[in-house]
Amino acid sequence: MSPQLLSPHNFRDLFDSVEAFLFDCDGVIWKGDTLIDGVSQTLDMLRSKGKKLVFVTNNSWKSRTQYAEKFRSLGIPVSLDEVFSSSFAAAMYLKVNNFPSQNKVYVIGGEGIIEELQLAGFTAIGGPGHANKTIDLKQNCFVEHDKNVGAVVVGIDPNINYYKLQYGTLCIRENPGCLFIATNRDATGNMTASQEWPGAGCMVAAICGSTQKEPVVVGKPSTFMMDFLLKKFNVSCSKMCMVGDRLDTDILFGQNAGCKTLLVLSGVTTQSALQDPSNNIQPDYYTSTISDMLDLSQK
Amino acid sequence: MSPQLLSPHNFRDLFDSVEAFLFDCDGVIWKGDTLIDGVSQTLDMLRSKGKKLVFVTNNSWKSRTQYAEKFRSLGIPVSLDEVFSSSFAAAMYLKVNNFPSQNKVYVIGGEGIIEELQLAGFTAIGGPGHANKTIDLKQNCFVEHDKNVGAVVVGIDPNINYYKLQYGTLCIRENPGCLFIATNRDATGNMTASQEWPGAGCMVAAICGSTQKEPVVVGKPSTFMMDFLLKKFNVSCSKMCMVGDRLDTDILFGQNAGCKTLLVLSGVTTQSALQDPSNNIQPDYYTSTISDMLDLSQK
Repeated sequence: MSPQLLSPHNFRDLFDSVEAFLFDCDGVIWKGDTLIDGVSQTLDMLRSKGKKLVFVTNNSWKSRTQYAEKFRSLGIPVSLDEVFSSSFAAAMYLKVNNFPSQNKVYVIGGEGIIEELQLAGFTAIGGPGHANKTIDLKQNCFVEHDKNVGAVVVGIDPNINYYKLQYGTLCIRENPGCLFIATNRDATGNMTASQEWPGAGCMVAAICGSTQKEPVVVGKPSTFMMDFLLKKFNVSCSKMCMVGDRLDTDILFGQNAGCKTLLVLSGVTTQSALQDPSNNIQPDYYTSTISDMLDLSQK
Repeated sequence: MSPQLLSPHNFRDLFDSVEAFLFDCDGVIWKGDTLIDGVSQTLDMLRSKGKKLVFVTNNSWKSRTQYAEKFRSLGIPVSLDEVFSSSFAAAMYLKVNNFPSQNKVYVIGGEGIIEELQLAGFTAIGGPGHANKTIDLKQNCFVEHDKNVGAVVVGIDPNINYYKLQYGTLCIRENPGCLFIATNRDATGNMTASQEWPGAGCMVAAICGSTQKEPVVVGKPSTFMMDFLLKKFNVSCSKMCMVGDRLDTDILFGQNAGCKTLLVLSGVTTQSALQDPSNNIQPDYYTSTISDMLDLSQK
């Protein structure tokens, strides 16, 4: 079915049937470090009408605490419970699968993943601590890995190096039953405002290449996050709406989980890309920015 | 058809019908820096009977000159023409496809690739020269890439870093028609004697992950090398025999090209792995080491 442009007519149906709105952040709430116009008032309106809000980001570089700080710095007060990052999702995946707390987790990624794993009671190694490790293959060098590592979590890592690739590969190949968890597989991300950079999909693929194994993905578009949220909020899928700017992560994520979906054109997807015959991911609704919801609610 | 153990009976058929023997190196000629017993005498015998010899390696770290030096240091004199490395294959791929010499080639990999590209008349950038580049995403940092790069060649690179990943990704994504060439996609390699390490397949997959494109592979098991050799030697496939220790690269490579194939058990493949029901790559012949050919030739 073709997506509907959000209008005074269909907005009321959407609004009344949805109890919780899930928002992607970059391209929906902000662009880089700049809030998108009208976002703050729109979120206030949704809260005042009793809607639950969740901010869902695939970026695993930060922890929820760090994201909540970013929201506050932009003038939007949020609680930790409203922020759902793929770094947190990785920790929750281990939690709901009863990962033994005496086992360790090796991290290829940032401080955000380490922090979330520690908050969940796990022992995390690697991450920024292995950023400066070097390998000289001319020496008879040998990487000794911890046999107690029971999971390798891979996210975006601008400090990727051969030592980390070897360490993670050894854990997955040689530690019996070792899990391989990807925070997400985004090809690129807006790590700086000036250009796109290789995303977690780059580091995850590297480990796939050396281990010849496929990871469990906990971020969008996998449904792990959504299943977790549905249980937590005790809301049925049909009463949730995923709002995002990317077809292949946000909208697919919402559809995979059976939610309603709303594409906003304030991020990476243009209207012509949405309507291109080669695009086979169709949201239920689309609109320019989430602040259109504020305007429509006042009509 | 089940592979035949090389025997006095079938050896003569193989030997008489083959004009050129193609040898993988690691696990066939040497293990690390040690020559496998009887190899030198076996190669002497083959040469004395007028057989052409080619040494084919997927390892792109070295150039042909560097490989020829290794052979000589182990007491085996070889000519440059007899050595065929995936670093050379990458240069030859550009040559036979009339890559414009005014365009540049960006290298993620070692000095061997740079050297072969330069010998073939191309301008190579990146490689070891970008080994120590660092990225600090906290700054508003920006990687400026050369718009004249028309090909990115990716091989094994123990100095892999985020700068190189970004540079290669930008060339492939933003330079119109830019080629993406993989020397090979081996998951791991014996870069040191003490353990296996992530191979070119790791770095290649990383670039696939960030560009969402697939490379042209010039090393085994792709037939590019073989097609090139067939033309160079003017020998029909059925008169060539590929000798190797890996089923999924060496033997598959030979089969893809329509050559005869001989598996030796002196490297990574065991007889039980060969005969395991899950293995679907069957060589024509198998034997312990290539020196069995010397014994059989004297019977």
